[in-house]
Amino acid sequence: MKLSFRWYGPDDPVALEKIRQIPNMHSIVTAVYDVPPGEVWSRESIAALKAQVEAAGLAFEVIESVPVHEDIKLGRPTRGRYIANYCENIRRLGEAGVRCICYNFMPVFDWTRTELAKRQADGATALAYDASRLEGLDPLSGELSLPGWDSSYKKEELRALFEAYAGVDAERLWENLGYFLHGVIPAAEAAGVRMAIHPDDPPWEIFGLPRIITTEENLDRLLRLYDSPSNGLAFCTGSLGAGAFNDLYHMVDKYSAMGRIPFMHVRNVRRYPDGSFEETAHYSAYGSLDMVRILSILHRNGFDGYMRPDHGRMIWGESGRPGYGLYDRALGAAYLNGIWETLDKLGPSRG
Amino acid sequence: MKLSFRWYGPDDPVALEKIRQIPNMHSIVTAVYDVPPGEVWSRESIAALKAQVEAAGLAFEVIESVPVHEDIKLGRPTRGRYIANYCENIRRLGEAGVRCICYNFMPVFDWTRTELAKRQADGATALAYDASRLEGLDPLSGELSLPGWDSSYKKEELRALFEAYAGVDAERLWENLGYFLHGVIPAAEAAGVRMAIHPDDPPWEIFGLPRIITTEENLDRLLRLYDSPSNGLAFCTGSLGAGAFNDLYHMVDKYSAMGRIPFMHVRNVRRYPDGSFEETAHYSAYGSLDMVRILSILHRNGFDGYMRPDHGRMIWGESGRPGYGLYDRALGAAYLNGIWETLDKLGPSRG
Repeated sequence: MKLSFRWYGPDDPVALEKIRQIPNMHSIVTAVYDVPPGEVWSRESIAALKAQVEAAGLAFEVIESVPVHEDIKLGRPTRGRYIANYCENIRRLGEAGVRCICYNFMPVFDWTRTELAKRQADGATALAYDASRLEGLDPLSGELSLPGWDSSYKKEELRALFEAYAGVDAERLWENLGYFLHGVIPAAEAAGVRMAIHPDDPPWEIFGLPRIITTEENLDRLLRLYDSPSNGLAFCTGSLGAGAFNDLYHMVDKYSAMGRIPFMHVRNVRRYPDGSFEETAHYSAYGSLDMVRILSILHRNGFDGYMRPDHGRMIWGESGRPGYGLYDRALGAAYLNGIWETLDKLGPSRG
Repeated sequence: MKLSFRWYGPDDPVALEKIRQIPNMHSIVTAVYDVPPGEVWSRESIAALKAQVEAAGLAFEVIESVPVHEDIKLGRPTRGRYIANYCENIRRLGEAGVRCICYNFMPVFDWTRTELAKRQADGATALAYDASRLEGLDPLSGELSLPGWDSSYKKEELRALFEAYAGVDAERLWENLGYFLHGVIPAAEAAGVRMAIHPDDPPWEIFGLPRIITTEENLDRLLRLYDSPSNGLAFCTGSLGAGAFNDLYHMVDKYSAMGRIPFMHVRNVRRYPDGSFEETAHYSAYGSLDMVRILSILHRNGFDGYMRPDHGRMIWGESGRPGYGLYDRALGAAYLNGIWETLDKLGPSRG
């Protein structure tokens, strides 16, 4: 297990020098952020990023994300150019020592929440998703102010995107994903890079847009689309675990035993019966997921990929990028260290 | 295991509200700080402290420390009054719900280091003890500026104390400790309080003053002085572990199996062959002590006492009381949570 930590580049209020002081920290997870989706990252930008990370004593081996252009997800004729650009990015990153690239295939919206700072009993705040509140929202009303993405598109752009997706149902999205994978996985194999698709978050349809990376059945299908270790999963416990329909422990067992998980995102969520959920501290008792059970399964299956604490709460008065403060993610990392070291020393575990 | 955290009262830059946000935090470890050693704490002060701690959602069950007046350690005729006062403090604290009182029996100096902010490879700083540097120091020269205690005494007071201790060798100190225990342990038993003596830190003589709470042989002797669960240990892994002569794992096994450890102080140190040491992150690989081994022994022996992360490094630019910042101690707490939860779920451990 190689412990890693997401960093949003030089503008991130969380400095690399601070991340380095988290015990056992191995890798930085980052990206080139000043290039529009679909374009090629310059070798200079990649080299500069790598140099910064390595100067702080950390490894530059994981990228999150190289974004997938909407034209690829929509299957537009222009996708050929964007896939060629994607392959070029894979090659350049592989040459720079990157071993894992995370991406997602969610139409329009990335992770979706209805609240960025829901207050918890101990005064911490965290991201939350209120199912009934989301149902009442019309993303095209122009009045929508959904945390996390609302500034990504102008109203007219959003309407055009929704119109374009009117012709793309789940099956069509699968076709487009398959086309993408057949385009990029050979390049990843050649570059020594493992692609890691992030599950849809939450793992169900929102606003009538298809979402397909959601369940065991669908993850099986994804892996069958291209049978290669380079076609892998960014197994996100918080995303998949937000759906009570997912048998998370069985899934992490199955896919790690298959060697198809190059990257673990580990966080906890507390689920409610109506489909709502809120993010919690990593500590198992605070949420619906058993972190020790998840890690002991990974350990038993010889997991040697990258693992990062995912979204943290905001604690101790920290402000910053929701979910991506330093403090609670660092507590998550220390907690994962404790679990993993214990498994190392006391194994074999019972998973 | 009840996770706890030391707090230096309302003047502590680390606020209770922040401590509460550390997952699984149970108890605050604190004291009344505005009363001179040897005097009785007012019921009002105790009640105010308890109210503050409980208002933050934390338990008020551990005191560190009720200091032992030097006249008791010296065996002066005045000790009777100070022991009576000590018993009264035990009674008052027991009435307020306190279950464990930590104290030490070190002459003149409490914990001793030669450096408060030794820089480590990752930019963190930590307390350190350089053996050769300490040997060259004369505490009576008036030029001594030893971190942590140098402002406790004026030069003349220090000289007078050293003169008083000239007549107190280790055997005499043992006698005085026995006299103290026979005075206070019955009061502790009656109050439902367990006394927890802190080992001398470091566990060897300094400046020619006797130190007796240092080794297995001496801890055995301490426990024999008064055979009661209320005569217990604050087993400090960092203090006892600074001496390579101590078989720490055997000792924690022995005394926890005997039920004589009401309070664990857990931290790591890196020892050097010349007797020097420096404090490190809790994470085992960073120091000389195996945290998983220590906790798995405690777990196997059914440890249900209080445990606190001890001294942390200074990280992330924090300033404050050396060893007692929020950040690295909180990382220690999260790490201990991970170990303990894993032991709970995967046991029986192999210790």
